[in-house]
Amino acid sequence: MTRDLIKDLFQSSFDNDILDRLSDSAVLNINSNSLAFTTDSYVVDPVFFPGGNIGKLAICGTVNDLAVSGSVPAYITAGFIIEEGFSISQLKEIIQSMASEAREAGVKIVAGDTKVVNRGKCDKIFINTSGIGVLKKSDISISTAGRISPGDKILINGPIGDHAIAILKARGDLGIELEIESDCASLNDLISRAMIYRDDIKFMRDATRGGLATVLVELAEMTGSAIEVSEPDIPVRESVKNVCEILGFDPLYLANEGKVVMVVSQQNCDLILKSLRSHKLGKESNIIGEIVSINKGEVVLKTIIGGRRQINMLASDQLPRIC
Amino acid sequence: MTRDLIKDLFQSSFDNDILDRLSDSAVLNINSNSLAFTTDSYVVDPVFFPGGNIGKLAICGTVNDLAVSGSVPAYITAGFIIEEGFSISQLKEIIQSMASEAREAGVKIVAGDTKVVNRGKCDKIFINTSGIGVLKKSDISISTAGRISPGDKILINGPIGDHAIAILKARGDLGIELEIESDCASLNDLISRAMIYRDDIKFMRDATRGGLATVLVELAEMTGSAIEVSEPDIPVRESVKNVCEILGFDPLYLANEGKVVMVVSQQNCDLILKSLRSHKLGKESNIIGEIVSINKGEVVLKTIIGGRRQINMLASDQLPRIC
Repeated sequence: MTRDLIKDLFQSSFDNDILDRLSDSAVLNINSNSLAFTTDSYVVDPVFFPGGNIGKLAICGTVNDLAVSGSVPAYITAGFIIEEGFSISQLKEIIQSMASEAREAGVKIVAGDTKVVNRGKCDKIFINTSGIGVLKKSDISISTAGRISPGDKILINGPIGDHAIAILKARGDLGIELEIESDCASLNDLISRAMIYRDDIKFMRDATRGGLATVLVELAEMTGSAIEVSEPDIPVRESVKNVCEILGFDPLYLANEGKVVMVVSQQNCDLILKSLRSHKLGKESNIIGEIVSINKGEVVLKTIIGGRRQINMLASDQLPRIC
Repeated sequence: MTRDLIKDLFQSSFDNDILDRLSDSAVLNINSNSLAFTTDSYVVDPVFFPGGNIGKLAICGTVNDLAVSGSVPAYITAGFIIEEGFSISQLKEIIQSMASEAREAGVKIVAGDTKVVNRGKCDKIFINTSGIGVLKKSDISISTAGRISPGDKILINGPIGDHAIAILKARGDLGIELEIESDCASLNDLISRAMIYRDDIKFMRDATRGGLATVLVELAEMTGSAIEVSEPDIPVRESVKNVCEILGFDPLYLANEGKVVMVVSQQNCDLILKSLRSHKLGKESNIIGEIVSINKGEVVLKTIIGGRRQINMLASDQLPRIC
């Protein structure tokens, strides 16, 4: 329904060629410069969770949206909607996480806005971050999928589902003890290192809400190619697998906040994989599948037991307010 | 308290030279281009009011923040936080107002984000808009007050307080029948016409939350100059005056959403006034005061009955969720 809403209502009303590309960041050409421009609101519940908080998430999420567009994240704005009575010490902790993550990621928070609403009119705190990234070449757009062709490999930089399970843990919804932290991290440094193979990187997207499955399905739709992924090659922590079995979740659909999916040329795939694995945020990177020419538009999972299962867009969110 | 919070917490944590300027938009230098970058969250209650709705407001507000920095507003992102159960037809109306106002103002909405939260976790709909404007010259910054000197004149483009009173009316808080509409409007066209006298325009700011008084007090603080404004010269509608008398409001502190305060050189003041008055959004423009050299940092109102009253920052918001 959200996808329909976006397509039917927002896209048709705000009709313009830049928005129509439906990528994570808009690519703007201003004089001789190309810029990426993106926005995200964060409403995660709870505000604090293992591995981060809403502030860190708001920086990482926007940095990652900019980085996967191929740009160098540079400037961020922060808009706060705060519920009356929200703890000042918690606000301080959130702000300091944002400042620290921004420093780590090398971005500047250059403008902000604060609105306070009466008690009960929002839930503790919501944060919007918008960001500008600088694109080096205006002629290559990684955020569209135009250069993808059969034989290209699909990479991911580590295990999926950690963020979603960490949020469930913080909500006290797991019912079991579990060591898990959100993977919430700024990926721009990892990505910029891989970008020395820029011509071989044909597409990037961060797998957030909707998980890896959603990225793959959208990718197949965009390219008209088919995608085959191999279940045994997709990194998932044992603990996450176990929780998924108990609670009936599919890790493919679980939200991540520090995972990038790359489509790369077969030729230099191993070099890019090596580059990813050499980074602290990519040690468990893996080749998880490839672009194939049969069954166009479909995403097929080759399962551990040797079966083949088609992956579709999930009809409803498994978990609300995950980010 | 909001000012203290911004200064002590946000500014000290997000420490950087661009944020420190504390203007409506950040001015960024990217390669050879100068850009203005700004953000605002809108939480106005009610969502629909005479003269506009939250969507129109979200476009006008961000367009105006960019325009008063001297830039040409170009690109806007929109982040929506929507309460579960919010009417789709109302959402449509809001989106269509945004689209229509964006067309009117000549800006493109290039990226967006939608989050839905459970019933009771936000109040109907909140919208964040962030925007990029293109600055023509990197050497002149209208958003800082560095070029202001005694003798400069202060202009405003029409009557103050309409927006705040329209919101009160929409809330049913007036207790009397009143013909009033919000002044909610995109001022970039009005401003761009006046900008042919660019060298004579030393400062601009839109008088939103906190009203004209807040702009004047901040201006006096920034420049270290004193400001004298003349009460009879400040345009206020009779209806707004009457409501203020009944309810005990001071129109100087009432929010506007289509008013720009300009500081201009004495020399070409009349030409700029003429330019403003020739625009449909500036017909009632007036010279309301000037920069003086005595009593530095103070704002003095010369009242209708011939007295002199010092204008200070208001200790608390007269009206919450006015924008």
